[in-house]
Amino acid sequence: VTDLFWPGDERAGALMSEVSFLETMVRVEGAWLNALVSSGLAPAAAHADPATVVTSDDVDHIARAAEAGGNPVMPLVQVLRSRLDPDAARWLHRGLTSQDVLDTALVLMTRDVLDRLADELRSQILAVSILAEHHAESPMVGRTLTQHATPTTFGAVAAAWLDGIVDAAEVAAAARRSLPAQLGGAVGTLASTVELAALRGRPSPTAVARDVAMRASEALGLRDHRPWHTSRGPLTRASTALVSCADAWGRVATDVATLSRTEISELAEPSGDGRGGSSTMPHKQNPALSVLIRRAALAAPALGSTMHLAAAMAGDQRPDGAWHVEWATLRTLGRHTVVAASQTTELLQGLRVDTARMTATLVSSAHDMLAERRGVAELLEASPDPDPTTYLGITGDLVAGAVERGRIFLEENA
Amino acid sequence: VTDLFWPGDERAGALMSEVSFLETMVRVEGAWLNALVSSGLAPAAAHADPATVVTSDDVDHIARAAEAGGNPVMPLVQVLRSRLDPDAARWLHRGLTSQDVLDTALVLMTRDVLDRLADELRSQILAVSILAEHHAESPMVGRTLTQHATPTTFGAVAAAWLDGIVDAAEVAAAARRSLPAQLGGAVGTLASTVELAALRGRPSPTAVARDVAMRASEALGLRDHRPWHTSRGPLTRASTALVSCADAWGRVATDVATLSRTEISELAEPSGDGRGGSSTMPHKQNPALSVLIRRAALAAPALGSTMHLAAAMAGDQRPDGAWHVEWATLRTLGRHTVVAASQTTELLQGLRVDTARMTATLVSSAHDMLAERRGVAELLEASPDPDPTTYLGITGDLVAGAVERGRIFLEENA
Amino acid sequence: VTDLFWPGDERAGALMSEVSFLETMVRVEGAWLNALVSSGLAPAAAHADPATVVTSDDVDHIARAAEAGGNPVMPLVQVLRSRLDPDAARWLHRGLTSQDVLDTALVLMTRDVLDRLADELRSQILAVSILAEHHAESPMVGRTLTQHATPTTFGAVAAAWLDGIVDAAEVAAAARRSLPAQLGGAVGTLASTVELAALRGRPSPTAVARDVAMRASEALGLRDHRPWHTSRGPLTRASTALVSCADAWGRVATDVATLSRTEISELAEPSGDGRGGSSTMPHKQNPALSVLIRRAALAAPALGSTMHLAAAMAGDQRPDGAWHVEWATLRTLGRHTVVAASQTTELLQGLRVDTARMTATLVSSAHDMLAERRGVAELLEASPDPDPTTYLGITGDLVAGAVERGRIFLEENA
Amino acid sequence: VTDLFWPGDERAGALMSEVSFLETMVRVEGAWLNALVSSGLAPAAAHADPATVVTSDDVDHIARAAEAGGNPVMPLVQVLRSRLDPDAARWLHRGLTSQDVLDTALVLMTRDVLDRLADELRSQILAVSILAEHHAESPMVGRTLTQHATPTTFGAVAAAWLDGIVDAAEVAAAARRSLPAQLGGAVGTLASTVELAALRGRPSPTAVARDVAMRASEALGLRDHRPWHTSRGPLTRASTALVSCADAWGRVATDVATLSRTEISELAEPSGDGRGGSSTMPHKQNPALSVLIRRAALAAPALGSTMHLAAAMAGDQRPDGAWHVEWATLRTLGRHTVVAASQTTELLQGLRVDTARMTATLVSSAHDMLAERRGVAELLEASPDPDPTTYLGITGDLVAGAVERGRIFLEENA
Repeated sequence: VTDLFWPGDERAGALMSEVSFLETMVRVEGAWLNALVSSGLAPAAAHADPATVVTSDDVDHIARAAEAGGNPVMPLVQVLRSRLDPDAARWLHRGLTSQDVLDTALVLMTRDVLDRLADELRSQILAVSILAEHHAESPMVGRTLTQHATPTTFGAVAAAWLDGIVDAAEVAAAARRSLPAQLGGAVGTLASTVELAALRGRPSPTAVARDVAMRASEALGLRDHRPWHTSRGPLTRASTALVSCADAWGRVATDVATLSRTEISELAEPSGDGRGGSSTMPHKQNPALSVLIRRAALAAPALGSTMHLAAAMAGDQRPDGAWHVEWATLRTLGRHTVVAASQTTELLQGLRVDTARMTATLVSSAHDMLAERRGVAELLEASPDPDPTTYLGITGDLVAGAVERGRIFLEENA
Repeated sequence: VTDLFWPGDERAGALMSEVSFLETMVRVEGAWLNALVSSGLAPAAAHADPATVVTSDDVDHIARAAEAGGNPVMPLVQVLRSRLDPDAARWLHRGLTSQDVLDTALVLMTRDVLDRLADELRSQILAVSILAEHHAESPMVGRTLTQHATPTTFGAVAAAWLDGIVDAAEVAAAARRSLPAQLGGAVGTLASTVELAALRGRPSPTAVARDVAMRASEALGLRDHRPWHTSRGPLTRASTALVSCADAWGRVATDVATLSRTEISELAEPSGDGRGGSSTMPHKQNPALSVLIRRAALAAPALGSTMHLAAAMAGDQRPDGAWHVEWATLRTLGRHTVVAASQTTELLQGLRVDTARMTATLVSSAHDMLAERRGVAELLEASPDPDPTTYLGITGDLVAGAVERGRIFLEENA
Repeated sequence: VTDLFWPGDERAGALMSEVSFLETMVRVEGAWLNALVSSGLAPAAAHADPATVVTSDDVDHIARAAEAGGNPVMPLVQVLRSRLDPDAARWLHRGLTSQDVLDTALVLMTRDVLDRLADELRSQILAVSILAEHHAESPMVGRTLTQHATPTTFGAVAAAWLDGIVDAAEVAAAARRSLPAQLGGAVGTLASTVELAALRGRPSPTAVARDVAMRASEALGLRDHRPWHTSRGPLTRASTALVSCADAWGRVATDVATLSRTEISELAEPSGDGRGGSSTMPHKQNPALSVLIRRAALAAPALGSTMHLAAAMAGDQRPDGAWHVEWATLRTLGRHTVVAASQTTELLQGLRVDTARMTATLVSSAHDMLAERRGVAELLEASPDPDPTTYLGITGDLVAGAVERGRIFLEENA
Repeated sequence: VTDLFWPGDERAGALMSEVSFLETMVRVEGAWLNALVSSGLAPAAAHADPATVVTSDDVDHIARAAEAGGNPVMPLVQVLRSRLDPDAARWLHRGLTSQDVLDTALVLMTRDVLDRLADELRSQILAVSILAEHHAESPMVGRTLTQHATPTTFGAVAAAWLDGIVDAAEVAAAARRSLPAQLGGAVGTLASTVELAALRGRPSPTAVARDVAMRASEALGLRDHRPWHTSRGPLTRASTALVSCADAWGRVATDVATLSRTEISELAEPSGDGRGGSSTMPHKQNPALSVLIRRAALAAPALGSTMHLAAAMAGDQRPDGAWHVEWATLRTLGRHTVVAASQTTELLQGLRVDTARMTATLVSSAHDMLAERRGVAELLEASPDPDPTTYLGITGDLVAGAVERGRIFLEENA
């Protein structure tokens, strides 16, 4: 899967792709069908593996047929029923509603995205920790509101990136843990499954219905949860995690773009294969990764706001548009985020740091750099040390603290 | 082109598709190349039709190769150069920068979207005008803040929809008229084209360079315009037009969704082919078109905000991320809007109006409906007419005025 | 504090008001000053309570003077220095940067907002739990995509609201726990405080500086944390909590607005004092609370997206605009959320439920309501029970489960 | 009016303030009342000037009382009726609905904002034209994707700013021209005014009602227009104009912030009165205006998206929340935009341009700057001119063209 409009999109592979969407919906149908069987509500003959009967060739037909009912589940069920054995066909999708299948598939695909992000975040934490420790004593100019301010170290800069990345990683890990299945039937009451159990003469029909939901959730590796057709917290938590990651990376990319400006040149992106080249100026080395990461960071907040809006407008027992807007929004946000994750990892692993340039700039700006120090000295009637590379405050502690926090995060989320 | 995540997507056909993007970029390269030739800066042997040498099979390769330089133009130029005659290959892309090609292609694709929208808006204006006139005297309950208020007519309701649609159509028509080509070279100065003209010994090299740009713009049917690499008004105007259309339709769809609620049932969507069906409840007739239109209306404002944000953050002579976020955002907004346009046209052309139900509801609510009328009568010490169907104010004028406005718009934009 | 543009604004009292902003910034200056004293870096004579020297009358002057330096801290420090004893004046703000004071004040004000929200959420959880349990067996029509679907109970509807509210309350409680102080000095290195300690001859100057920060954080009741001038996770977590609350309430208000439509009338807002009245139609009873809550839910996602955007664009050691946009955005989001919180509590505590109407509608729609049940019966060749009030699935379990979850949340967050 | 959370807010004066809101609503009530009188529907004794009976002291009471009915018009009408002569009191607000008064007041306040913006935009066009012409031949490095690319002139940079500003000014002028009054009564049918005319025995009651609306519109200087209670084009056009202005300025401020970076220092903001100072580093000269303008540009797109969303969700004859969210959103957007307008004017009028530094940087980067030129020379087997200050392309034409366009705009919008 590539996207000519979003260079780097192939880094997301099949995550949140149309084929993955189809396959995952089929998997949900299968998990439910087999839970009906294993709980004794459907006959053993209904057991089936629906995954074997659809292929990526079905995507186009199902997508086209999806509009009539407003979602792709109905045509998918028709396709599956036409291809499964009669018993399986008869029992397929019994007790489910379209939103169950689609939401659970969204959740499973989101889980895959979050798993991939977890890998990338782990790599990033390692890479930034190395940068921070390696440059714990590399002094550089600190900049505020675009102007030279007082000295810092590149290690401290990297430590601040690291804190931002670990913040995001914590949000993402929490979102990953709380992903629920959606299995509620037409209005979230599992009524037809309860009815089945009652007609089957089971003593506690509601317990049986809940047991079916639990079996299907377990089969999919998701939390069993009361239906959340119009309580969209699970999706806003997940989408917020994606946006928060983009925030953390956007901020790193903004710094790299600035610090690799021709006039500053303290950082440079990893080079290789025409990376950062220009169509007309062979000398140019554009910070292409940073630029593409910033792109994602500019796009993510608005996409995240649509997910919240959808949650806020989710009325009745299933909503009239607010649900439908989530699918593509979450897909776009998910793929963009994975692409940016991978680009950020590459950026951080290959970042080139010009410490000589950093020192030179700091020294050439020494007088201004030490204005604050002179103020302190004046206060105590002391004479200030004129060396800007010794006015570094707690930068060492910042590095040690952030790296330690990262280490603990990695340990706890191994 | 379909999209399993956005049912109905196929209504947008090839508009803003990846293949269209590729073809349109090639068209821009061709227009510029041949303008160089026709203006005498490049030799006649450089004349070529690059469209003949790329196919949709190239999309994947170019998309993958796009990441290194941050955009797909560089790999596209490489592909073209490898396939064109040596003279054409040598002169191809001379004087252009990636952003020229990509922006002009975006503009051309946006023009196609706006043309398609213009067709849909025309059909909608006709359809709503017919509804408004046909129901100019169909009384119904007016509702404010969800409650029955005073009477109106369905004609007046449709007239208000019509005003909203014509408002949007005017914004879209203005955006369509102002679409400019982007032809500026590396930093928007056309310097290398001027240099070419100077080295060719042309007396007024800047005039020659501007003439090349004009020829290329004309060949593409676009306005000749100073480069706007970081002045993104043309794109924010166009994207605002798309969002404004979605606003107008979202509001119609909101009304249809409400008025087709089971308890209200004054309107119904056009039926046919399982339209609006449910996977488990055969009796259900969901307002599927309205639901899908509302979906687009919920998504569009956030996408539009990203286009504005990109405009606001467009720094330097070409921006570092703010440009890159526009492409996919505009694509998504463009396709969503065309899909919603087509769905709205279908909705309006097939809308079923239950005037008997409207009257019945109005009559059953007559006492409340006439509270205001009684207040007026009391003021003049008159006795109020008890018939709610005669308290319709200027509804007739509203219909006539809105229809006339629509008619004039259609005439002026034929 | 009222706001003619946002009816109900006075429910937020002084939270996030200008006076509160001023007072809180002063409190931060005081906490730092006294931490300098207590740690021995500043002389005992520098101890002061700056809160005593500013009043709300200073707001206007400081606001006007804020523009020159881009933030209100500099003029505030000037005002304080001009009014404090010379020793305190000399030591005030030593080691801090404007962003330290402003960010910590924002955090403290956000904590007050979150505390108020916690109270409201608690009241809401109780109120909805009562509704859910009281109506655990009140059958009603379930509605999906605006149409009658299958039966549910109002208890189950309330249970779903409850799940949404507890979801939001969990997000808010987590955000509340993680609020850090911001104390870093010019570029986040605490360099001038370290310098002070060194010039004072303290053996471990960096430990002293960190100790000052810890003392000040403790005095303010905030987490001690590495500076996060450009790692804005703390603020995006808090703002996401606010938006998530608005989502949960917006969804309740959407349901109430729908179910109190004249044609449906299953719910009604609490009445009293002209609540919901109309300027011209005395009979009208508008769902004014729901309308105003929906207003907040429509506004919140976009405001939240601005906070994320600010986080993503936070470059250098302190950002050039991305920081400045947060203040008013968070203030607006904070006040809107508190107002909506209070309105939602009132709505839920006074909600009027017309169970007779619910039953009547369900019975009148019984044939359609039971289509799914007939399908199940057919599958097992049984004959379906024709009573729609017995097709309620696991609604009882949904109520019990959601109420239990709410109870546990209240216990754990007492 | 100041705002401690938004430094510079006082630049917006009373525009869109609460007092202005109150006064403007009163003005609308007055215009309608007197139109009733002048058209003969109300007795001469009902003529009144309601503006004389309310003061800014009423804001607080009316704001508090606004919540019950969901808007401030009802309590305002009560206050006015209690203070006017009985005849005026009896006829006041007859035929209007709250939304008429509030919307028309919003429009009038928006007009004042757009008038103020028009003044600022005029000043900016003049100031940038001067900069562009003055620096038409000031060569500087052109930068793309943060890197040195090829030469340009500061005149061409300013010309591009100018094009962006004139783009925005055109959008704002068009929005200004189209502002309509909102006068429709309860459901937009003017029914009670028609009823009045009928009871008064007037031959064409609907014509009389429309005449009243026309008289009131004229008295307020607004376009007479069919009611647009749920067709929000007028407000989205206006709010888009505000956002488009912020886009144009944000882009200028982004450039100024970059070019005044310590390492670049080609531009500097106007100095004076502690402008740009730091609380701890006396040497610092922060680009405070640019920072504050960027702040507005980061906030505006999201606020604009809320206005579009409100338009899209405007259902029934008057909406249930979508209307209410517009007031404060438009107020905030309006005030922010005026503040940013004024700051941008100041920035542009006082901008300091260091042409020596520009030239020095260009010369020091000459080799890279001329890579493209060498490519062209190679193509024609010529030898390239090594002077980067002669590789300026059509920059002269860009300046002339943009300035001419600005001049024409000013002439046509004098």
